[in-house]
Amino acid sequence: MTDTNSFFSLHATDPAGMARAGVIHTEHGDIPTPVFMPVGTQGAVKAMDHRSLRELNTPIILGNTYHLYLRPGVETLSAMGGLHKFSDWDRPILTDSGGFQVFSLRELRKMSEAGVEFRSHLDGSKHLFTAENVVEFQRAIGSDIFMVLDECTAHPATYTEARTSMELTTRWAKRSRDHHLQSPFLYGHKQFQFAIGQGSTYADLRTSCMQELVGMDFDGYAIGGLSVGEQAEDMYAMTEASTQVMPMHKPRYLMGVGTPENILRAIDLGVDMFDCVMPTRNARNGTLFTTTGRVNIKNARWKQGDEPIDMLCGAESSQNYSMAYLRHLFHANEILGLMLATIQNVALYLWLVRTAREKILDGTFRPWAAETIEKLNAPRP
Amino acid sequence: MTDTNSFFSLHATDPAGMARAGVIHTEHGDIPTPVFMPVGTQGAVKAMDHRSLRELNTPIILGNTYHLYLRPGVETLSAMGGLHKFSDWDRPILTDSGGFQVFSLRELRKMSEAGVEFRSHLDGSKHLFTAENVVEFQRAIGSDIFMVLDECTAHPATYTEARTSMELTTRWAKRSRDHHLQSPFLYGHKQFQFAIGQGSTYADLRTSCMQELVGMDFDGYAIGGLSVGEQAEDMYAMTEASTQVMPMHKPRYLMGVGTPENILRAIDLGVDMFDCVMPTRNARNGTLFTTTGRVNIKNARWKQGDEPIDMLCGAESSQNYSMAYLRHLFHANEILGLMLATIQNVALYLWLVRTAREKILDGTFRPWAAETIEKLNAPRP
Repeated sequence: MTDTNSFFSLHATDPAGMARAGVIHTEHGDIPTPVFMPVGTQGAVKAMDHRSLRELNTPIILGNTYHLYLRPGVETLSAMGGLHKFSDWDRPILTDSGGFQVFSLRELRKMSEAGVEFRSHLDGSKHLFTAENVVEFQRAIGSDIFMVLDECTAHPATYTEARTSMELTTRWAKRSRDHHLQSPFLYGHKQFQFAIGQGSTYADLRTSCMQELVGMDFDGYAIGGLSVGEQAEDMYAMTEASTQVMPMHKPRYLMGVGTPENILRAIDLGVDMFDCVMPTRNARNGTLFTTTGRVNIKNARWKQGDEPIDMLCGAESSQNYSMAYLRHLFHANEILGLMLATIQNVALYLWLVRTAREKILDGTFRPWAAETIEKLNAPRP
Repeated sequence: MTDTNSFFSLHATDPAGMARAGVIHTEHGDIPTPVFMPVGTQGAVKAMDHRSLRELNTPIILGNTYHLYLRPGVETLSAMGGLHKFSDWDRPILTDSGGFQVFSLRELRKMSEAGVEFRSHLDGSKHLFTAENVVEFQRAIGSDIFMVLDECTAHPATYTEARTSMELTTRWAKRSRDHHLQSPFLYGHKQFQFAIGQGSTYADLRTSCMQELVGMDFDGYAIGGLSVGEQAEDMYAMTEASTQVMPMHKPRYLMGVGTPENILRAIDLGVDMFDCVMPTRNARNGTLFTTTGRVNIKNARWKQGDEPIDMLCGAESSQNYSMAYLRHLFHANEILGLMLATIQNVALYLWLVRTAREKILDGTFRPWAAETIEKLNAPRP
């Protein structure tokens, strides 16, 4: 089953569930899906060199419009020919609009029909993001995939609050799409645009929001406003309420999610794309995801552990360095500890979605996912 | 001119000065001299992976007995088969005895003829280092080259203080040598031992100390207690007072020195080996050494600098990443900034001594050194 849509090809769907295997095509390269996108908020994945990302076959990384707009700034990025050239990364980049970051500023922002006014967390200076100028900022960044400006509805929200917020996001999406379609690419390569569905934990709002967005014919669709404090079961229910009305032949992106279990379960609900700071942030706290289970590397259990960090997930450093050495680096506050743990966790996430894809193509996704969730959730023996 | 001494071969001396080119032979590999040894105090060069060190052709790194003794501890290092296996580094390692670190504890130490009693900077626990047990600790670490326990004389010191301290260091050296010669290698590979000359800023003490040490027939000789606050001209004078009485066919090591200029001037005085935290520490502060001059990477000068960090010093990342991107990483507090700056500075120091060696072999060391000092000291245009 192959679709010839020029942006997204769907190669297989799991016979038992809704899991899909496909490829997103961009001018900076193909992205096999399901995909995990390491988060490079400020133009760098924390504690990781781009070369290590390439060696792990990372097909795409994230940037954040809010952060990059403030620093290094749109002017510098334009002068340097965009984020790809600026950061020496020649594979695809997806940029979040910054809606989520502005949302988390809380006291420093003011919403209006026009957009969101906020004060920089760096220097308190005042700025306005609109549906339209966020498209322009992403043109200057030069990302391959843009996200629209949305309002990330606070959790918990009453039904009325959630609907009001979702409707604003929907109106902004329309303005974003119109502006995107009439503004030219800046650096010669094609740039695609995804909408973001909201609706808090109300399935009918999620469904109607996504249906409206689908009518605007975006290049792909994201599910936003989850992983903000709701129960995991609510997250899965909202994901399903959204994927059920998403078009088959466009990529589907669940934003900011999550644990390896969250990702496998969302793949089973038909999601193609993921990003999350969890692998990199947990790495810096000494919490490792490995193919043989969870690890707190600071634990005395690993004091003389001469086994490698992980033989299976594909990171060379994880095959060469021992658990005991990594534990020592954390106790000695060595930056190398953060570097090696980050490589391990990113490699694990990339291994997870790469293997999920193989299993979907094999038609064996569900039993593999169940077994893998159990293995990865357990403490490493 | 080749010497067939099995530990050190002298290949050339500069006709104009005292600069030497040679090779130190260890069972973990050959070390071409002059050599700069990146400092891996706790078993890791700060912010740098061992793979990057290998790619830069780093022939040897340093460890520190004081730090490794406290953490991960001799017991763990023995259980793991020594520091080479523990840290996945298969090239030579030199360990400082920890004399310098104990010296800098000041309030926490008590000197005696037996050795030095001190309290750990980590948990206040009490420990005793003696000439003999420091040899044993370095056996457990498994380093290829050991340094003896010495007393790093405080600066400034009166002549009497300097002599008293130097005499203690000399008596400890004798005990160290005796113990070393009668205690077996722990992991099968040969381990060599260097003495450390002291004598503060008094040339006659430096000379007589070194003469006594030379009489004990160590594998190599180091000049200690410099770069501790004295004038640069005093440092050069003390270096010369020492090298003049050092044997021709054994390696000479100036400890803890220094800037690129310090290193080139000391090479001209006949020194073969160097270590210093300056390249790595300065890197983390954003001060770069480059083949085209000094750089404060945070400076606005580099905001839109699309030139590479350094094309000549041999670091791939310095050829691929721009000054503007590195500046951004520092302003955004990204760990990747520390990583890339560290690679640059270590690469520069390795380039410096590698090129010095070529020029000594060519017979063109002095004019090259004069030109290089001028270029490297100047701010990058």
